[in-house]
This record gives sequence, structure tokens and C-alpha cells, in this order.
Amino acid sequence: QCDLFIQEGARLGRTPAEVVSTCDITFACVSDPKAAKDLVLGPSGVLQGIRPGKCYVDMSTVDADTVTELAQVIVSRGGRFLEAPVSGNQQLSNDGMLVILAAGDRGLYEDCSSCFQAMGKTSFFLGEVGNAAKMMLIVNMVQGSFMATIAEGLTLAQVTGQSQQTLLDILNQGQLASIFLDQKCQNILQGNFKPDFYLKYIQKDLRLAIALGDSVNHPTPMAAAANEVYKRAKALDQSDNDMSAVYRAYIH
Amino acid sequence: QCDLFIQEGARLGRTPAEVVSTCDITFACVSDPKAAKDLVLGPSGVLQGIRPGKCYVDMSTVDADTVTELAQVIVSRGGRFLEAPVSGNQQLSNDGMLVILAAGDRGLYEDCSSCFQAMGKTSFFLGEVGNAAKMMLIVNMVQGSFMATIAEGLTLAQVTGQSQQTLLDILNQGQLASIFLDQKCQNILQGNFKPDFYLKYIQKDLRLAIALGDSVNHPTPMAAAANEVYKRAKALDQSDNDMSAVYRAYIH
Amino acid sequence: QCDLFIQEGARLGRTPAEVVSTCDITFACVSDPKAAKDLVLGPSGVLQGIRPGKCYVDMSTVDADTVTELAQVIVSRGGRFLEAPVSGNQQLSNDGMLVILAAGDRGLYEDCSSCFQAMGKTSFFLGEVGNAAKMMLIVNMVQGSFMATIAEGLTLAQVTGQSQQTLLDILNQGQLASIFLDQKCQNILQGNFKPDFYLKYIQKDLRLAIALGDSVNHPTPMAAAANEVYKRAKALDQSDNDMSAVYRAYIH
Amino acid sequence: QCDLFIQEGARLGRTPAEVVSTCDITFACVSDPKAAKDLVLGPSGVLQGIRPGKCYVDMSTVDADTVTELAQVIVSRGGRFLEAPVSGNQQLSNDGMLVILAAGDRGLYEDCSSCFQAMGKTSFFLGEVGNAAKMMLIVNMVQGSFMATIAEGLTLAQVTGQSQQTLLDILNQGQLASIFLDQKCQNILQGNFKPDFYLKYIQKDLRLAIALGDSVNHPTPMAAAANEVYKRAKALDQSDNDMSAVYRAYIH
Repeated sequence: QCDLFIQEGARLGRTPAEVVSTCDITFACVSDPKAAKDLVLGPSGVLQGIRPGKCYVDMSTVDADTVTELAQVIVSRGGRFLEAPVSGNQQLSNDGMLVILAAGDRGLYEDCSSCFQAMGKTSFFLGEVGNAAKMMLIVNMVQGSFMATIAEGLTLAQVTGQSQQTLLDILNQGQLASIFLDQKCQNILQGNFKPDFYLKYIQKDLRLAIALGDSVNHPTPMAAAANEVYKRAKALDQSDNDMSAVYRAYIH
Repeated sequence: QCDLFIQEGARLGRTPAEVVSTCDITFACVSDPKAAKDLVLGPSGVLQGIRPGKCYVDMSTVDADTVTELAQVIVSRGGRFLEAPVSGNQQLSNDGMLVILAAGDRGLYEDCSSCFQAMGKTSFFLGEVGNAAKMMLIVNMVQGSFMATIAEGLTLAQVTGQSQQTLLDILNQGQLASIFLDQKCQNILQGNFKPDFYLKYIQKDLRLAIALGDSVNHPTPMAAAANEVYKRAKALDQSDNDMSAVYRAYIH
Repeated sequence: QCDLFIQEGARLGRTPAEVVSTCDITFACVSDPKAAKDLVLGPSGVLQGIRPGKCYVDMSTVDADTVTELAQVIVSRGGRFLEAPVSGNQQLSNDGMLVILAAGDRGLYEDCSSCFQAMGKTSFFLGEVGNAAKMMLIVNMVQGSFMATIAEGLTLAQVTGQSQQTLLDILNQGQLASIFLDQKCQNILQGNFKPDFYLKYIQKDLRLAIALGDSVNHPTPMAAAANEVYKRAKALDQSDNDMSAVYRAYIH
Repeated sequence: QCDLFIQEGARLGRTPAEVVSTCDITFACVSDPKAAKDLVLGPSGVLQGIRPGKCYVDMSTVDADTVTELAQVIVSRGGRFLEAPVSGNQQLSNDGMLVILAAGDRGLYEDCSSCFQAMGKTSFFLGEVGNAAKMMLIVNMVQGSFMATIAEGLTLAQVTGQSQQTLLDILNQGQLASIFLDQKCQNILQGNFKPDFYLKYIQKDLRLAIALGDSVNHPTPMAAAANEVYKRAKALDQSDNDMSAVYRAYIH
């Protein structure tokens, strides 16, 4: 998997610790809070390679508690920490059109600006560590809930004898029209659930966003309802399909 | 209220029956199923003026049962019936940018085409009576649920110490960006809930869409959750504000 | 179906109107608002037989608007009206252990007291017409939501490797212990969904209770969530099974 | 706080480690997963006092992952571990009428039997560590969801002009009648929310039960809806009141 990069001049690190030892700035992106912690705190983990001046940029979408804990241990060893989760999907990543939310070490954010420009169309610096995690969870909560709503609309059209294509045409004429709406409806109309954004990850983000609301006693009934629909989709083996496969929870 | 139109050459009908007697094609738009029925079936109602060849176009957003019942009584008197609910809001109406969903008498739809072109940017003919009602309820269900989701996201941002403006900026950079999202967030950021689309009407449409799902045993958990949030907003006296005032259900 | 009663001395009325003409007090119990209206307002309906002094007792569980409308037309013809929906199931009905909620004509309620004593263990007089409908919907809303919760608990036990029988044993030792809890869990453990209370009727009552809340802008998120689960159960062909068959919505 | 016990002959341990060093069997009960972990793993925690043969019984209601982790570390030091969360409330505790769910070391369970008999009316042994946590969360999920349903029914009665006392009388006549239903309704009717079971703890249990469902992809829409209502109650400062104070989420 790494061969292509090595041909281009990259060097291969055998462990996270080794990578961090070798590089000034290490970027990482893993799937969930547990993986993010293991990567830093596990045997031969990032923390073993952190020395004063070393920089670690975690681009995973996790909860604020996790990222705050990681920041603390890295800073306590003299390292510099930036969280920088990305909003977008596989397609946008290929096109360098991601939106990057960053928080933590402001200087490090500025040092990363050329990298971020290569990866994304824009980036935001949001202040203290944890803010990017929170903001990203909120963005993905909105996206995940809206995706469930779209699937609910398309299936209700179908079972009441309406054309799903016409529903999409109508929505595309109105003020709700967006790239997201169009692409996700196209996925469903074509039965193409190849993952741009894994269903299991949007469900994870809904779960974490609900927990975020929980931590401040803020009700999130839409996200709670959406989360239950995604759980049904996961029970129907849609975890590794695109989030638009939540559609299948409505037809089974 | 009607003086301006009369100055322009319109004639005033004292009752629905009188209007229908005078005109070839009568357009009507009222707030809910009960009002739509009363207008047709009540004393001096539309039905009293219907004769063979008279045309009645109901542009209200109601349920399919109501519109089907109205179609039947009008057709049984020799009249022609078209349902033509509109998607859009006050602003779009002023700009002649509404989307019109029509169903029923196809010939009448074609006769109305110049009128529809004046009112809206586009129109769809959806077949037999009831289809436009169903489709419109689904469109508004999607819109109403998404609105609640937006409000949920903005309030969760606020209570977790994030900038609502930044959340909007991020969303506007991503694939969810839409006129609706931007305008409704602007309303909330400015605390401006002047009605473009009355909150009480989107709640009515959610209720009718849930009933539509009920009639075919189709679960609509997102709409059900949204409906409860709008009911809370109504209890907080937001009925006559814009649908974006659902935001207030999240902060009280 | 009526032969047994006729052998016991009952007379058969060919139409609702004929029954009402023959009897001083007519008792009726049908499945939903539409049936209740048709029975009274339809051709050869109850209303045709109502004369001054005739009494009509509607024991159906319907909404307050329906029962109020029926009361008005019957009273306008000089009849007397009592609504008297019953709480209970087939078993309790056989045992004469129903709970009767009555409202409307107080004198008629007293005239019916011996009949009610034969049918039920107790009855309540709740004042003006509509109150019994409202109270019954609330009682059934509580019951329907609790039933969904029980099913949710039993299925969560199963999928997490716990014994459903042990869960029931634990619940039966605690303060939640009730005949309802025990019987419905037994139904589920035995896979016996013979109807005591039809699933389609408890779903109808949830729907009407939600509408009751809607009419006063009162959120009912538990009932709304339960309603969606019952709709799924109906889509799985459980309408004519007992309400405990909502269990099946959780395992498919 | 401990003086009374000391007068009765108890000895005071300064730290968890000291208590465990002194006793053969240590019983502990704290509020949530974090507290349970801190007690064992923190400085001068239980783990520092564990030696071969020492027994630790954790009676807290936590999630299965937490209790499994604690069991592993204690067993790895040669200790014996039993989880034994209790179902019940303050009143039942005073009366020695708790229901105890135990899992883990079967021999230790038997050694504790006389203690458990003093504390509770009955106990269940549920097999491997984690099972008692899961079962307790399910029991409390059922209880918490039902409590929200009761509050929803009582408030809907009130806002529609019905007597809450009469609703309780009706429910007490029917098959739903239970000590829980009666006591919680009495609390609400009397506006007495003195904690028998803290609202914040039932919300925590709902949260953990939802997470349990999440871990096996099992939808729990009733618990999810209830959880949102309790979060609103917490936002209204009801955390330290009885769980019946969820009522207040429905009237504000």
C-alpha cells in the first residue's frame, strides 16, 4: 500500500513512534476514539516518539474528551498538538476540496497551512483543543440527520406511488437544492452505495454528537431519531456502504 | 385588501359561489384541509357556483383524501378540477419563482400553463388527483425535518461554546450548502423570524405527512421527531413566526 | 353470529336505524372514528331512528371531535347521548372486568348503571362529551407506549445474550410488576400473539392521542416514537395480532 | 458520616486500598463508570490493596465494558470479583427489599449470600461478568422509559382539561396497576420530587442502555426518545430530584 509513496521518495516508518521520531510534523487520521488513543498511547505509539518540538496533527473525527486527553499527554512531553478533522468525503479528498477544522496550537496551524492548502479548499482555526472535534461532530450530525430525512422522503414517495426521480427533480428546483442532496438521491435512485462516507462512521459521529449534547444537557431529538435509523441500517449489514444506504433501513 | 386589484380591473365576488359563477377558471389557496373543504362545501361555497365547464384550481397544501373528495364533488357537477399546491415562500411568490405541483385534469393543467408560468419558475404534472398533495407533503416533510436539524445544530454549537456564524460558514463551504440552509441560518443568527413560511403551516404539513405514512404503514421517525419539536415551538407561541423559529424550541 | 342471542330472546334489527327505533337505549361499539360516524350518519344509520327520548351509548374508542359531532346531531333530534369507551381486553370483557369511562348525559349514565355493572368492574363519569374519549386515548397511549418499551427491553436482552425469562423474573420482583407486564411478556416468551387487544387498534389510539396532543400543542415524544414502531409492526403484517406483536418490529 | 458505623464496631479505612487490605470482602457502590474506575484504578485505589484471596464486590450500575475491565485487573492480581448492581430505590434499600443482580465469581456470590439476604428480597446469579451490568441497564431502561410515558400521560391529561387524579384512579383499576405507577403518579400529583432514584442516574442508565444497543446494532427508539426528555429535565435543574421530576420537562 505504501510502495507508491516510497517510490516518490517517502520513507516508511515501522511504528507510529518511529514515524514521529523521524518527522517534524506527523499527520494521522484514524476511524474512531479508540483507534486514536491506541495510536498515541499504545505500545510503540506516537507518544514514544514525542520529544520537545515534535508536532502531531490528528485529523480523525473523534470526541472532544479524547482529543483533549491526547493533547495533554503530547504537550506534557514537550510536543505540539493540533487537532484537524476534515469535513468531506473520498471524492472531495481526491480533488483536494476538503474543509479542515483545526484547533490547538496556533503556531502549528500556521506551519501546516501549506499542507492544508494542498488537501483542502479551506480551513478554519477554532481556538482551544476540543473545539474542532465539537464543531466537526455538529457538522456531521446535521449531515447525518439530513441524510436520514432524505431517505425517509424518497421511501415515502415510493410507497405512496410517487416517482422518486420526480421528487428529486422538484427538490432540485427549490431552495433546498444542494450538491449533497443531489448526489445522495442519485446514489439511492441508482442503488449505488459505494462508500464516499462510510455509514458506520456517520453513525459513530451521530453517537458522539448525542453524547456531546448529553454532556451539556442539550436535547438532540433529531439526531437521536436518526441514530436509531442508522443502527437499523447497521443491523442490515450496511456499515461499510455509503451513508446513503440508510435508505435500506426504510425499506426492510 | 382587494381594492388594489379592483383598480386594476378585477371584479369582486362576494362569495366563493359568486366568484365561480363569474369566472371560467377559479384559483384558490387556503391554509388547511378544513378551510379547503369549507370553501367548496360550505354555504355559498364553490360547489354552488360549479356548472358544466367551470374550472376550479385548488392551490392549497392539503392531504390527498381532502383533495380527492373535493375533486369528486366538483366533477360530479360537471366541473373540472386541478390540484396545484405550490412549493416556496413569500419571497419566491413575489419573485414569481414558485414551483407548482399539479394533478387532476390534464387539459385544465394545460389551460393554466400561462398562469402557472407567471406565478412560478416551473411546474410539474403528476397524474391523478391526490398525487400533487402527496408529493407536496413529502417535499415539505423533508424541508421541515431539515429545518429542525439545522436548529438543533446551531443550538448545540451555542451551548458547547462554538460560534454559530462559524458553523454556518463551514456548512456554506461544504456540499450541504443551499439557499435554504443559508437563509434559515441567517434568520436565526439575526433573530429575525418574520414569516416566509409560517411555522404553524410546516407543522401542519409534517402532521399530514406522518398521516400519509400512517395510511401505508410506513415509519417516518425523523418527521415524527421534528413534529414534536414544532409542537413545542407552537406551545412557545411561535405559530405565526417563520418555520426557522423552531430554533426557540431548542433554547427554552 | 346473532343466533345465540336471538335464542335467548333478543330481537334482530336489520339496520342501525331499526335497532334504535325498537330500543330505548342502544349500545354500539365499533373500531374507529370513520366507522362510528358511518354507523350514525350513514344510510339507515342510527340518526334515522333517533326520536325524542331515544338513547344512544357509543362505547367505541374514538377522538373527542368525532364523539362531539355525534352527540350534537343526536341531541339535535331530541335523542340522548352518552359516550362510554371501555378500557380492557377480550379476557376482561369475558370476565365482566372492564373499566368504563363515560361522559355526556348524566341521567343516561345513571340509567345505564346496571348494564355497566354487568359489563365492568367499575365506571367513571367524566363530565361533558369528549372527556371520556380524551381520557381513554391517554390511558391507551400510556399502555401502548409501555408495551413498546417492554418489547424493546426483551429484544435488547436477547441480542445481548441475556435470558428473556430472567428479565421477566427480575421485573416481576420489582415495583414495576403488573398483570399487564407479566401477561404481555408471557405472550412474547411463548410467541403467542392471539389478539386480546388488536395491534391495529392500539396504533390507531396512539395516532389519535398524538393528534390530541397536537390540538393543544403538547409534545408527546414517547407516543410518537411508539407510533413509529407500531407502524413498522403493521408493515410486517401484525395488525390483527395482539399489541404485544410489536415485539416483531424489533426483531425484523 | 461514618461515626454511627464506627460506634457499632466498624473500622474506618482512610483509602480504598486500606479498606481492601483490612477486609476479606469489600463492597462498593458508586454513581457511574468513571467513579467506579477511579475507585479501583486511582491513587490509593482498590487495586493497591488487592492480594490473592481478596474479594471485591462492585454494586454500582455501570456498563459491561467497565465492569469487565475492573474484573480483569482485580483477577490479574489474584483477587476475586463479583458485580452485583441493585435494582430498587432508597425506600426499598431501607426496607431490605432490593433486588440484586450478580455475575462473575460464582463462589464469591455464594459467600455473599447472607449479606445479600440482609440487603435484598432476592438475588439472581447471571453468569459471566458483564451480564449483571447489561441486565440492570435493561431493567432501568424499561423503568426510565415507562416513567417518561407516565409523565407524558399525566401532562396530556392536564392540558386537555382532564383530572390527573382520575387518570391515576383509572390506571390503578386496570392491568397496568403497579407500585411504581402509583408511587410515581403520587409524587407528581403532590409535587414531591424528593429523590428515591435520582433523575441524573436514570438518565445515565438510559444513556448506557442506548450505548449497549448501539454496540449490537439494536435500535432502541423508546429509550432514545426518553433520554431526550430526561436531558431536557436535567437542563431544567432536575438532576438531583427523583426521576419522576421528568414531569417538569413536559410542562416547561
